[in-house]
Amino acid sequence: MPSPASKDAKPPKPQGLTYAGSGVSIHEGDRFVDLIMRHMRSTHSPRVLANEGGFAGLFRLDFNQQLFKRNFKEPVLIACTDGVGTKIKLAVETDRFEGIGQDLVAMNVNDLVVQGGEPLLFLDYIACGRLVPERLERIVRSIADACRACETALLGGETAEMPDVYGPDDLDLAGFAVGVVELKRATDPTRVEPGDIVLGLASSGVHSNGYSLVRKIIKHAGLDLARAYAELAPPGHAGPPPTLADVLLTPTRLYAPSVVKLARGYKVKKVVTGMAHITGSGLAGNLERALHPDVDALIDESAWTPPPVFPFLQQHGSVDDEEMRNVFNMGVGYCLICRPTFAASIKDRLRKLGEQVFVMGKVVKGKGQVRIKPR
Amino acid sequence: MPSPASKDAKPPKPQGLTYAGSGVSIHEGDRFVDLIMRHMRSTHSPRVLANEGGFAGLFRLDFNQQLFKRNFKEPVLIACTDGVGTKIKLAVETDRFEGIGQDLVAMNVNDLVVQGGEPLLFLDYIACGRLVPERLERIVRSIADACRACETALLGGETAEMPDVYGPDDLDLAGFAVGVVELKRATDPTRVEPGDIVLGLASSGVHSNGYSLVRKIIKHAGLDLARAYAELAPPGHAGPPPTLADVLLTPTRLYAPSVVKLARGYKVKKVVTGMAHITGSGLAGNLERALHPDVDALIDESAWTPPPVFPFLQQHGSVDDEEMRNVFNMGVGYCLICRPTFAASIKDRLRKLGEQVFVMGKVVKGKGQVRIKPR
Repeated sequence: MPSPASKDAKPPKPQGLTYAGSGVSIHEGDRFVDLIMRHMRSTHSPRVLANEGGFAGLFRLDFNQQLFKRNFKEPVLIACTDGVGTKIKLAVETDRFEGIGQDLVAMNVNDLVVQGGEPLLFLDYIACGRLVPERLERIVRSIADACRACETALLGGETAEMPDVYGPDDLDLAGFAVGVVELKRATDPTRVEPGDIVLGLASSGVHSNGYSLVRKIIKHAGLDLARAYAELAPPGHAGPPPTLADVLLTPTRLYAPSVVKLARGYKVKKVVTGMAHITGSGLAGNLERALHPDVDALIDESAWTPPPVFPFLQQHGSVDDEEMRNVFNMGVGYCLICRPTFAASIKDRLRKLGEQVFVMGKVVKGKGQVRIKPR
Repeated sequence: MPSPASKDAKPPKPQGLTYAGSGVSIHEGDRFVDLIMRHMRSTHSPRVLANEGGFAGLFRLDFNQQLFKRNFKEPVLIACTDGVGTKIKLAVETDRFEGIGQDLVAMNVNDLVVQGGEPLLFLDYIACGRLVPERLERIVRSIADACRACETALLGGETAEMPDVYGPDDLDLAGFAVGVVELKRATDPTRVEPGDIVLGLASSGVHSNGYSLVRKIIKHAGLDLARAYAELAPPGHAGPPPTLADVLLTPTRLYAPSVVKLARGYKVKKVVTGMAHITGSGLAGNLERALHPDVDALIDESAWTPPPVFPFLQQHGSVDDEEMRNVFNMGVGYCLICRPTFAASIKDRLRKLGEQVFVMGKVVKGKGQVRIKPR
């Protein structure tokens, strides 16, 4: 939580140096805290302990209230941190912050649920050159909306105004997520077996990786963020095509709600043997992390069609096929490896939970590699 | 954990745009991960589950191994996040990173223990304009050293190379700490009573707040970071005086080890009724957060002498007394409010744990304010 500043600060004498004079506005910081409180509270269940003005956020792990009864036998905490990379630059450039908070939450909670657990709490770090409360509030609202969608408490955050590190309009975002998994339910890569099926969940677009390359392509090809390019419209799209900014700022899909609900449906059987969130190093680089050294994953790219933004970027940047695969998700943002006899029912459940699911391939004996058959 | 990049990346064809060409070096990222692994592992107890290449870090909350036996009845998770502000600019300017990791850990764990619990795990987010593995390794080593001192696992982190947000040498750091407290042992501001004694623990210097003002004073007064100023030497200091950089980059004191050990010594009695980590808004702004609306804290400034760096900064910046108090810790970095009958023994224990302790004042009936009697 941003530290509440002293309310007793007297106006400093004009001749001496002051903190405010060094570019840090305590007043704007206070106003920002007031603005975001309701967004934070909107994410709080009874598991969050009231701690107004406290130095840290408090969250009950075990709880005996009737509605929320839960006690862990061997609780394992899961924690991870991630940012949104230079996607924030596009948000700043277009003054569109309504989705960037979801990007931040998604980058973290999607990593977290890979381990088999559920996200409990989230904290954000926002650094900026100049603290404009109304602008940052839009980011925090987006963070809170995404946290609610994942039943995750936005427990705190820090906002740092650092005029000499960041340009006046520049920003950076980092997120931290904590979750819990019952030890016996934690994902275990050694359980993956030949014959297991690999399912892919459709991405919502570029998500939050590779934006340094995206921005280089925009510059190189003279693309216009505000322009509606016909080739960006997905097949069957009705109405005017989306602008390039619409497509590139589509928030990263939150897989956590579906993945957590799926796991709740299989309390006894461990039907999912591995999972992967497809981020920085593409499908191969990430799915590999779900394998052990004696199995390979064979992926058939004809199982799905990348959304139009990928061929669009590739063409305008003359980007090599292999480079595209190594940098972008290419249409699949999350993978599940599952026992073959349950693949159909898992696919069905995920569809009912709102996911678009592709049967991408299978596990075979191997060397811990992902082998891709190009489309 | 920084995502391991795909090991199969082929050199891209020269005509197309590439990720590496956009200023992000996957190779340097991989080399950095190799360099920091041993530092991270040096902080891991058996409570950290092996999860090489995993998407998130895993930490056992309850554990039944003989040496570490512990089971929580009503565990409450505590979490907070903070950065080091523009102190990082001084570290970059002087190429001194050996203490800045401790600053980052201290800013977080000191906030965490205020709630009565103990820190369990830490994660870092490092953003930079250019990833120089050897430079960032010095930061991570300092983070790991501080984590070990607090018996806290460095469970993961993220390193973001963002050439368009940060200048080539610029950096930002954010930290994130998670701890646990048994519900019945959590700090509760309503327990503070008139008659309670306020103890202060000496700070190691400016800590990690107010550096935008510090840097403005340096510029304004033409101070030289490399120069040894005689007036910066503490009373009784032997040998040559420290340089301004020595003093300003002294890492923030880690109070967590002493505070946690103190609490372990009073398992049944709740002798400490409130605590405060003195950061951004000074003694009054932070100690106030430990009070409830019916009590005041009366503080007598003659109980301690601020280290030489504070009068030095004040004089060179002609900073108002009140502004100094509102921005800096002025020599006290952490406060404990305790029952009067235990004050002497608590003071004694803290001294034996290596703290310099001041009896700063007491609690009286009031309105939730901190009233300071100037020295």
